Amino acid sequence: MQEQDFQTIHDIGIRSLYDRLKKYSGASRDEIIPAKVKNSSIKAPNKNENGRLISASGIYLEGVHFDLVYTPLKHLGHKLLSAAASHLYAVNGRPVSARIDLAVPNKISVSMLEQIYHGFDQAGKIYNCSVQPGDTTASRQMLVVSVHVEGIVREEEMITLEGCSTGDQICVTGDLGGAMAGLRVLLREKQAWQERGGDHFQPDLEEYEYVVGRQLMPLARHDLGAYYEKAEVHPTSQVDVSQGLINEMQLIAEANNLGCEIFTPAVPISLETRQVADEMQEDVDRYAFYGGEDYEMLFTLKKEDVEKLKAEFDDFTVIGEIKPAEYGIQLNTGEGKSIDIAKEKNQGL
Amino acid sequence: MQEQDFQTIHDIGIRSLYDRLKKYSGASRDEIIPAKVKNSSIKAPNKNENGRLISASGIYLEGVHFDLVYTPLKHLGHKLLSAAASHLYAVNGRPVSARIDLAVPNKISVSMLEQIYHGFDQAGKIYNCSVQPGDTTASRQMLVVSVHVEGIVREEEMITLEGCSTGDQICVTGDLGGAMAGLRVLLREKQAWQERGGDHFQPDLEEYEYVVGRQLMPLARHDLGAYYEKAEVHPTSQVDVSQGLINEMQLIAEANNLGCEIFTPAVPISLETRQVADEMQEDVDRYAFYGGEDYEMLFTLKKEDVEKLKAEFDDFTVIGEIKPAEYGIQLNTGEGKSIDIAKEKNQGL
Repeated sequence: MQEQDFQTIHDIGIRSLYDRLKKYSGASRDEIIPAKVKNSSIKAPNKNENGRLISASGIYLEGVHFDLVYTPLKHLGHKLLSAAASHLYAVNGRPVSARIDLAVPNKISVSMLEQIYHGFDQAGKIYNCSVQPGDTTASRQMLVVSVHVEGIVREEEMITLEGCSTGDQICVTGDLGGAMAGLRVLLREKQAWQERGGDHFQPDLEEYEYVVGRQLMPLARHDLGAYYEKAEVHPTSQVDVSQGLINEMQLIAEANNLGCEIFTPAVPISLETRQVADEMQEDVDRYAFYGGEDYEMLFTLKKEDVEKLKAEFDDFTVIGEIKPAEYGIQLNTGEGKSIDIAKEKNQGL
Repeated sequence: MQEQDFQTIHDIGIRSLYDRLKKYSGASRDEIIPAKVKNSSIKAPNKNENGRLISASGIYLEGVHFDLVYTPLKHLGHKLLSAAASHLYAVNGRPVSARIDLAVPNKISVSMLEQIYHGFDQAGKIYNCSVQPGDTTASRQMLVVSVHVEGIVREEEMITLEGCSTGDQICVTGDLGGAMAGLRVLLREKQAWQERGGDHFQPDLEEYEYVVGRQLMPLARHDLGAYYEKAEVHPTSQVDVSQGLINEMQLIAEANNLGCEIFTPAVPISLETRQVADEMQEDVDRYAFYGGEDYEMLFTLKKEDVEKLKAEFDDFTVIGEIKPAEYGIQLNTGEGKSIDIAKEKNQGL
């Protein structure tokens, strides 16, 4: 990137900023009329008669949800759009347009904002989602980003938290705990950097590429709906794993007034994640069960549908079974031990 | 309100919070399916074939956009929904549903959050807008609120920034500068309170009821569209006055590549606003021209439509006329002086 003077939004004015951000508009979609500076984007109506409009949002604070010491700005935009889009894919829908609200402190230059938008733009192109700047306002110290995504789901394809029954197989895509492992590595590097006196942060993360990538640039499971269609299966419930497996499993169990048994040795964990947990002398199961931000999909299938889906798509694992409510959430360790965590309070925050 | 222990979201869990917030859902609208804890509300499609979906959003930080010392929590919710709804009324649309994202520090209890939602609920009922909790997350020190409103506008009724031409009359509803006057009073009271050592903040604001109300609990101009219909007029451009008259006027001028002349003595300013400016020894015109948050509507009418609208609705004032681009933005003081502010840089933030 070319060197340039440090220009703030205040220096160039909000309308010039909007002009600069125009090129980071994600996927171009005919039905979207670009946002005005006055903060109201306008879209053509949904022509899809049996479609439903869906929306999801997230609010992210510097120092709470992300750390600019180790988060490249481009990755930040990419991740936050992925997180919101993931919630729409969870109901088997598709995102259409995203609106970004920002509260920007003086330390963030216009070119830094452009980098964030570059990430939004890239993610928008992957998810076929238009990106529009919304409200852009001042902040004292920390950057605050709010992402709102709207989309569409076909009525007959919709999957919600509700619908599973006893005997349904609990499945999860990819592997879990990687984002948490990546976070642990980044936090360790940050600490070492601070102890060195806070020079330029340039850690060697090559060895940890997989888990750091899981933390900094997760991809929403945007391809899953197509595989369901191809395999002609319809999951009986589904949720994306943003807050950790156990938390999401509780959502499904409660929504259906049912319980479940999870075979803990079956929960997919990558070798790289295990290595990080070993290094940190921590329990890798905690990464996989409670670590959030993996953005994998947790879903339930009728027993006979598992093989049908496997024939088309094999990046998922059966990790348990839906049980009657009195089971609560049971973790079966495979060694005769079973832990009931159904009564654990959900902290959720 | 009944005294109760100070409970945080962390104490009761996010799902219990959602249960408590259910009753603050604004207007009940059949097409809205209530939000799940998993942060994705789902709505039936828009049946209105010639309608467009519109949306607006705002992000508000404690200490930057609002001050909890003098802002009652109930009023805060009311104001922030009014601000977002105002942007939809500006295109002659109507809000349908609002989603609220919150980043909540520990100092904010559940019952305080309920008060904020009480304000959202009240405003939602006024604007016939459903209210849904979105993302609720942790914050370090300050409360952050992001409001996203979606709505509908009929294609043939839509009014945008663009469309006016030379000779059109510039009109504004109500009066301007009141919100700024209210802010000045509240800031003065806060300072006095701090100098007293920061005991319970209980200023006597009776004398300033009007301007303080303008600052703390503005109402969006939700009734204007009905009057346009009744009077059979269609404004040639429109914008809501959220950032101050001059700023909004520049938006219209630029969007149409035109200029304008504003007769400054005609700009409506209430007696109460003038009194505050006198007390503060400040120029009341600055309140009216640059003070934001009045949420009045600035619109342009064909000359012949002014009387037609007046016959049905008289709470507006003609303050100027659209001119060719070379005029810039001229303020005509009526004393032979004319100030051109078209070249002033718009700071916007």
